[in-house]
Amino acid sequence: MTINFRSDNESPAADAILSALQEANSGPAHAYADDDWSLQLNARFSELFGTETTVIPLSTGTAANSIALAAVTPPWGAVYCQRNAHVYTDESGAPEFYGNGLRLVPVEGDDGLIDRNAMMGLIRANTGHGVHSYAPSAVSLTQSTERGTVYTPEQIAAITGEAKKLGMATHMDGARFANAVASLDCHPADVTWKAGVEMLSFGASKNGCMAAEALLLFDHHDLRETAERLRKRSGHLLSKMRYVSAQLLAYIADGLWLELAANANRQAARFAFAVGAHPEARLEFPVEANEVFVSWSEDGFRQLEAAGIEFLMWPERDNLARFVFSHNTTDAETATLCKALEPHVGAA
Amino acid sequence: MTINFRSDNESPAADAILSALQEANSGPAHAYADDDWSLQLNARFSELFGTETTVIPLSTGTAANSIALAAVTPPWGAVYCQRNAHVYTDESGAPEFYGNGLRLVPVEGDDGLIDRNAMMGLIRANTGHGVHSYAPSAVSLTQSTERGTVYTPEQIAAITGEAKKLGMATHMDGARFANAVASLDCHPADVTWKAGVEMLSFGASKNGCMAAEALLLFDHHDLRETAERLRKRSGHLLSKMRYVSAQLLAYIADGLWLELAANANRQAARFAFAVGAHPEARLEFPVEANEVFVSWSEDGFRQLEAAGIEFLMWPERDNLARFVFSHNTTDAETATLCKALEPHVGAA
Amino acid sequence: MTINFRSDNESPAADAILSALQEANSGPAHAYADDDWSLQLNARFSELFGTETTVIPLSTGTAANSIALAAVTPPWGAVYCQRNAHVYTDESGAPEFYGNGLRLVPVEGDDGLIDRNAMMGLIRANTGHGVHSYAPSAVSLTQSTERGTVYTPEQIAAITGEAKKLGMATHMDGARFANAVASLDCHPADVTWKAGVEMLSFGASKNGCMAAEALLLFDHHDLRETAERLRKRSGHLLSKMRYVSAQLLAYIADGLWLELAANANRQAARFAFAVGAHPEARLEFPVEANEVFVSWSEDGFRQLEAAGIEFLMWPERDNLARFVFSHNTTDAETATLCKALEPHVGAA
Amino acid sequence: MTINFRSDNESPAADAILSALQEANSGPAHAYADDDWSLQLNARFSELFGTETTVIPLSTGTAANSIALAAVTPPWGAVYCQRNAHVYTDESGAPEFYGNGLRLVPVEGDDGLIDRNAMMGLIRANTGHGVHSYAPSAVSLTQSTERGTVYTPEQIAAITGEAKKLGMATHMDGARFANAVASLDCHPADVTWKAGVEMLSFGASKNGCMAAEALLLFDHHDLRETAERLRKRSGHLLSKMRYVSAQLLAYIADGLWLELAANANRQAARFAFAVGAHPEARLEFPVEANEVFVSWSEDGFRQLEAAGIEFLMWPERDNLARFVFSHNTTDAETATLCKALEPHVGAA
Repeated sequence: MTINFRSDNESPAADAILSALQEANSGPAHAYADDDWSLQLNARFSELFGTETTVIPLSTGTAANSIALAAVTPPWGAVYCQRNAHVYTDESGAPEFYGNGLRLVPVEGDDGLIDRNAMMGLIRANTGHGVHSYAPSAVSLTQSTERGTVYTPEQIAAITGEAKKLGMATHMDGARFANAVASLDCHPADVTWKAGVEMLSFGASKNGCMAAEALLLFDHHDLRETAERLRKRSGHLLSKMRYVSAQLLAYIADGLWLELAANANRQAARFAFAVGAHPEARLEFPVEANEVFVSWSEDGFRQLEAAGIEFLMWPERDNLARFVFSHNTTDAETATLCKALEPHVGAA
Repeated sequence: MTINFRSDNESPAADAILSALQEANSGPAHAYADDDWSLQLNARFSELFGTETTVIPLSTGTAANSIALAAVTPPWGAVYCQRNAHVYTDESGAPEFYGNGLRLVPVEGDDGLIDRNAMMGLIRANTGHGVHSYAPSAVSLTQSTERGTVYTPEQIAAITGEAKKLGMATHMDGARFANAVASLDCHPADVTWKAGVEMLSFGASKNGCMAAEALLLFDHHDLRETAERLRKRSGHLLSKMRYVSAQLLAYIADGLWLELAANANRQAARFAFAVGAHPEARLEFPVEANEVFVSWSEDGFRQLEAAGIEFLMWPERDNLARFVFSHNTTDAETATLCKALEPHVGAA
Repeated sequence: MTINFRSDNESPAADAILSALQEANSGPAHAYADDDWSLQLNARFSELFGTETTVIPLSTGTAANSIALAAVTPPWGAVYCQRNAHVYTDESGAPEFYGNGLRLVPVEGDDGLIDRNAMMGLIRANTGHGVHSYAPSAVSLTQSTERGTVYTPEQIAAITGEAKKLGMATHMDGARFANAVASLDCHPADVTWKAGVEMLSFGASKNGCMAAEALLLFDHHDLRETAERLRKRSGHLLSKMRYVSAQLLAYIADGLWLELAANANRQAARFAFAVGAHPEARLEFPVEANEVFVSWSEDGFRQLEAAGIEFLMWPERDNLARFVFSHNTTDAETATLCKALEPHVGAA
Repeated sequence: MTINFRSDNESPAADAILSALQEANSGPAHAYADDDWSLQLNARFSELFGTETTVIPLSTGTAANSIALAAVTPPWGAVYCQRNAHVYTDESGAPEFYGNGLRLVPVEGDDGLIDRNAMMGLIRANTGHGVHSYAPSAVSLTQSTERGTVYTPEQIAAITGEAKKLGMATHMDGARFANAVASLDCHPADVTWKAGVEMLSFGASKNGCMAAEALLLFDHHDLRETAERLRKRSGHLLSKMRYVSAQLLAYIADGLWLELAANANRQAARFAFAVGAHPEARLEFPVEANEVFVSWSEDGFRQLEAAGIEFLMWPERDNLARFVFSHNTTDAETATLCKALEPHVGAA
């Protein structure tokens, strides 16, 4: 029997999500997002965010990110993102595909966060030479980041503010948005439209859904047509969209999304505390959401594996591993993990 | 209370499919199609088709069609399809998008079928001028067709045979493949690889699934890598792919797919019989699967609407309507439809 | 010794063009179309056309056509053109490439001309289904046509008028524009902006230049930025653009372009007269510019070849040949051709 | 009266090139690179390089670079180049356009040279995660570099060797290839195919031609078809290609190309010597070809401008300027420049 801390992508769906699917599965419903569930999305998300919100339901975050970036960036435009951003390192060039060859420019920064000065330096270097240069078109932030850290509202506003001065669009990849909001214990508006974010890839699959994501527009609602064209043209307009929308509605109803994320964060924090107290293992990055990166010895990691703990070694350098906590991780599972970490428990 | 004959896209999922989702929703599973369900697909579909079959699970038919065509066609290549084919008229250019500007060439033909001579004439006209011309790269047939008709194995072989002589790849859009196989009462191999079809978009969503399709490769298994790259890059590699694969496995287990399709076909046939016996209404195309196109008067169609019948007027010309029968259409619903058709029932 | 009637593409440059190159070849000049020659283009072409004209110098007509169409058509848009249009049959999909997968829709019509009703029928068939359909975005006419015929101002206005009602952009492929204007003996404005044409691919290479074409914008001058981006991004922004612009300036100075075209047309007319008087050979299309399509017997064409006449057999059907007359075709050459046509001159 | 050191792109064509155009301008010639000049290219360049060479004549270096990289890189492939490479910073994304969204990865390195370790680190970081990662597909070196430095044969071989071990293709952007060969005083083979370079963008426009470049294939001659398709589809297959090919033939005949480059290099060296001896001005990079980057004071640069010297300020940082020497730069012009540099000459 093993316990899986490999990825929240590997968790099952929450019961409430399955029940929502079951309820949605009755009788006919208009196809192509013209059903009763999909037609409620704008109203429900507008309530949630406290501002008019246009919702484009989708089944993957890669589609949401790519549609967002392609909608605001010409083929000769550049999108600035952190070097470790999912759009840059894990989507096999989906933004470039949707964006007909747009360019992603990787920006340095500690702990998965974009360094504002580094971004401004790159923007200056790559523009100003007329048609020979790329046009700086958008910035994309990841919240929570690929390092398990979280931007504060002020940090977000500082970056989006610079971007807006240059006429650039602003996007947030929120594959783990719930974890960030739960961590900050803030209103979702505080880290999105109130902080200058115009478009949000709202993730739900990792945090308890089966396959449900959405592109949210807080601004530029006129991008809807372009986004819908891109969704259709990329094969993401599901005929039976009701099943995605029903997941999304159940996910944000009664605070379910934050409850699920809070559990994942709490379990991560417990493990982080254990690592912090460990004589050898070390936290690689601040633990602010549901991901914990640990530096340890090869023997140490073998000891965990021997205890039935599953996790991923991180390829950037030797002896770095990632542990991800999910909406359904139990106290018992985390306790087992923490216990396995203890010295002298015995190696393989 | 209305009865919906608008589209099989508007039907709910079959109970067995929901149960399969529920069963799959237990414990962790590796992400990105590396789960126990997805890893069974090749074996189960190979059994079903009686030949080695590579399966790429997907959530829409547009994605399956586009990945298939893009995998075998260079940007300067042409794909020949019937003028009414979904890839040509209903996908907003998805094949061109995935194929980096490949060209779809519409071929004339009666009843939704490709006319072989018309196809050969267009191939000749558009090639032979070196780099100035398009390279004829693939043919795509739709089975059952957009007109509700069905190709016989011989008709398929005749077209794929010509294509293969020219070094072209062969693809079948099987959005309603089950309806065709149920109609012909043949082995699925007979209208696919045995008839020269190398790639099949195997549809399941319309016939009882929620969102489950697959690209099947019977040949050129080396296309798998390209297909998987295109799936990832287009955002169609679901992290929790188990939920698509579980649907597909349940769909083809114990002949469920053919059972569901047979019901739809049977209901369509009953309605076709009623139309055939009607003094004014007329069948526009032979009824060989689950779609029935009816020519009638404006007053006639109003009479149906008044009886609570929902259907779609077909835009090509006046007074043409389409009725689609689904896996869950009941005898009672079809009986109500047939009754509403009868003369003197009274208008709205 | 042979005489070449294969294509005006095979003719050398006119002396005045070479002289212009020589004059331009003195001292340094700013690169990338910021030189004294390029900076004169807008003024000179505005004078020529009698309206404000934005000029984008280029070295091929394919680039001009593709940039024009891509600038006004989204990837999910359709461009309507005659079935024999160069953009459809001879550019290996360049418009689709520049336009990120836009669709060209071939329209039927006699003698190389777009049939307005056929175009409207196709527009209706391919639109109106929301994001599932293509958006009708542009119409492209060829003047003179690929059949050697010429649209009258009224014929052009009728087609552009329909297009504009639908919000479509209008483009003219003027690879042989000079031949059309010389033939109609009209002002160049009469068949362009006054007849509703917003963008013109102004051809010069075939009619006496080495490699000089231009995209002219009579309207939507704001497209200039997009067009210049596409020019750069496709590698068509020559560093030493002065040599293209110098050709263009010399070409339109003092009516040279019309003089050269008039000679080509006159020679074509002489040959057309001879064919018309011939007992067996037959003109396939009206001869209105510098191309003559002749139907004859295989023996007949052999007789011409034996007399040293070079021409191209046309692949659409047996025993059809094309003869093209150039800016430098001499009376003596045409006389030799006409003489070779005469019966009983002797076979191979 | 001013003297232009802004760019070799601003120089006129050499007399021998104009004469070649004049000679080529006689009588008809087959179109689309099927003329007598174009058909000689393979033989002449094979002699020059001492190995079988396939030549694709083109009119810009951007087209040559983009066609080369797109021919060997799938849309999900990555091309590694130096951060200052023209393909990365000055082509508005042409490689991404031709390559359907391929990715260029900027590699650090001093003096415009790729740092091999930096490249290997980036390759490792961006690959190995299956379809989620980019496939490392090609490396592109610039010779001479954008900093005016030159790779030795050993430096080239070290980088191409690593690339080949990983199955990557190797490309050289030789916009200033002649300057590099003249500088190294080596055989052109030594820094190309003998050093592991498979494809060369052979530049000629900057060094005495009007608009003449070529993509050379030393290996993978089967890429010719793809390259020719890309040339056609991008609008770079000139109908009257003889005029490009005639320039290329004249350029490499009798060592003209190296003679012209040697003059440019010699003038650059003289100026570099003067800068080196100057009390304040400083050479920013080693001067190994025909470009000289100078750090000085704002007042210093004003002093040069006052003396009629034209040059470009370099945007990366304050008070950095570039001086480029051309095939036709005279001793007198360079002497004037050196004199203007001298202290106490007096400010504007």
